[in-house]
Amino acid sequence: MKIGFDAMGGDHAPVENVKGAVESLEMISGDIVLYGDESMIRNELSKYKHDSARIEIVHTTEVIENDDKPVKAIKSKSDSSMVVGLKALRKGDVDAFVSAGNTGALLAGGLFKVGRIKGIDRPAICTIYPTMEGASVLVDAGANAECKPRNLIEFAYMGSMYAEKILGIENPRVALVNIGAEETKGTPLYIETHQLLKQTELNFVGNVEGRDVPTGKVDVIVADGFTGNIILKLTEGVALSLVKGLKREIMKNTIGKIGGLLLKKNLGDFKKMLDYTEYGGAPLLGINGLVVKAHGSSNAKAFKNAIKYAQLGVQTNLVNEIKLKISGLTSDEIDSDVSE
Amino acid sequence: MKIGFDAMGGDHAPVENVKGAVESLEMISGDIVLYGDESMIRNELSKYKHDSARIEIVHTTEVIENDDKPVKAIKSKSDSSMVVGLKALRKGDVDAFVSAGNTGALLAGGLFKVGRIKGIDRPAICTIYPTMEGASVLVDAGANAECKPRNLIEFAYMGSMYAEKILGIENPRVALVNIGAEETKGTPLYIETHQLLKQTELNFVGNVEGRDVPTGKVDVIVADGFTGNIILKLTEGVALSLVKGLKREIMKNTIGKIGGLLLKKNLGDFKKMLDYTEYGGAPLLGINGLVVKAHGSSNAKAFKNAIKYAQLGVQTNLVNEIKLKISGLTSDEIDSDVSE
Repeated sequence: MKIGFDAMGGDHAPVENVKGAVESLEMISGDIVLYGDESMIRNELSKYKHDSARIEIVHTTEVIENDDKPVKAIKSKSDSSMVVGLKALRKGDVDAFVSAGNTGALLAGGLFKVGRIKGIDRPAICTIYPTMEGASVLVDAGANAECKPRNLIEFAYMGSMYAEKILGIENPRVALVNIGAEETKGTPLYIETHQLLKQTELNFVGNVEGRDVPTGKVDVIVADGFTGNIILKLTEGVALSLVKGLKREIMKNTIGKIGGLLLKKNLGDFKKMLDYTEYGGAPLLGINGLVVKAHGSSNAKAFKNAIKYAQLGVQTNLVNEIKLKISGLTSDEIDSDVSE
Repeated sequence: MKIGFDAMGGDHAPVENVKGAVESLEMISGDIVLYGDESMIRNELSKYKHDSARIEIVHTTEVIENDDKPVKAIKSKSDSSMVVGLKALRKGDVDAFVSAGNTGALLAGGLFKVGRIKGIDRPAICTIYPTMEGASVLVDAGANAECKPRNLIEFAYMGSMYAEKILGIENPRVALVNIGAEETKGTPLYIETHQLLKQTELNFVGNVEGRDVPTGKVDVIVADGFTGNIILKLTEGVALSLVKGLKREIMKNTIGKIGGLLLKKNLGDFKKMLDYTEYGGAPLLGINGLVVKAHGSSNAKAFKNAIKYAQLGVQTNLVNEIKLKISGLTSDEIDSDVSE
């Protein structure tokens, strides 16, 4: 097995990327193919003891930047680490491709260079949402700002499959984000989607309100990409604000500082629960190949974990399982837009 | 000045309501009119020393329950504490009306019994959003699941006025919730609203992403009611989950318990920052009278603060200021839907 990895994507490329790749070798059985500037990569690689037989380098001359227009960048930068890596995935040279680069470009590249799974209208970003009771899955975390009911139904199927295969949750509880528990709540999109979800074979447990999203009482949180993106980033923002506020209170006086010192280890465990780098990557489900988006600010640890999860996705045959599931559905089950 | 108060609304009515009303007398200069079952109210009132000349009781025989259908309840329960109180507001018998009852019913009742401000298409719930740097304003927190651009523009004007009059913020920074900083981000609703907000006289500072909502770097957070409701409840949920997780870590071992004990006072201050009861009420802006929604689970302290803020709303002439502002706008400035 080979995991393709964009050495040039992310805020700390290629330093943290290469470090993460080397560290991941201890956790995975497969090998790694790094896409990027060869001399920069070799320079970083030389810093670490590693099994060079397990790391291949494919030299590329261009980099897609964060402020590049996604579609234009994919079309014009044909020798970028991202485009070359995605093409390799399409050809089967690698079994998965991980990148912390421009999200829109990765999505556009996935669509144009790798293609969609037949039957899927819109691929989605499927991310792990850490809760105090373990991990949930949030889909769509931001790929599709505007959605139709059929998109949310597809997200639900793909998210459920992800929870089952990657998190090992049997019969995952699928819930629809909404502003109330009643099935008549929300916008027409959510009201219609609720009715359609009830008719699926999924373990649909109804609506989940914002208040209950972080409790871990549901396994798959389904939302349009606008709402999902706000949920993901707001959760991060609230957690950061609270940790900052907590620190300020601890440092306020001597007795607080002593208390904080005694709590240091326990608070470390607490922070670990909130740490996105523990999961590190979010697959773009619906693409006909395993494309994993790592956080733009990923450090080596986040990359290591993203690569680990990518291998798990390959081992559990995630993309093919989704293909099989979707091809087994009649169009009635996922598509209510008969007028289209 | 008289503040009308629904003694029968909320999870702990009338016990906490009456207690809160009595306690509020020390903080306000006006008097209170309680709407509800007279004998129940008198029974509660008898528990507290208070100036009976400052509390009037208007006996009502019906109660609108949380699971009542809003419009139907307002139409059929004409002798409910909520309907009688709203009618009194319309007549000018009271200067504001505070209720912790059924939100939908309060909104419907506000529309049918008190009426809209001319020029406002949709009233909105305007709530204070506590941040580590002080209070922001979130509007709409859930009155309107589906919105048009003109609704969001109205929310922005009303929220800005609220931040100025009630929170005393000069030239409030108004921001539009979105999934990116760029003005091309989001759904068509948000893209169009962004352009319209740029043309207003408001201090529009652009989009605010979920991550920055809790930082307090903007004063007025504008969103459709679906998104706003999820922001409000998710923030509450994440904060609760984190406080629970923190407690668990503190209690995990002896050294943690000692640390927690030393930090007790500081953590108390920390929790206070997150405490919604400090603010207690959210006005339904756009109604032609000051209607304040208190949290359904309000305790006496939350009611006391809701009444205090209601008095502040009357003193600062909030509703009339909004009227003046809206009447001064040309329809071009708030309405792009020329086709309507």
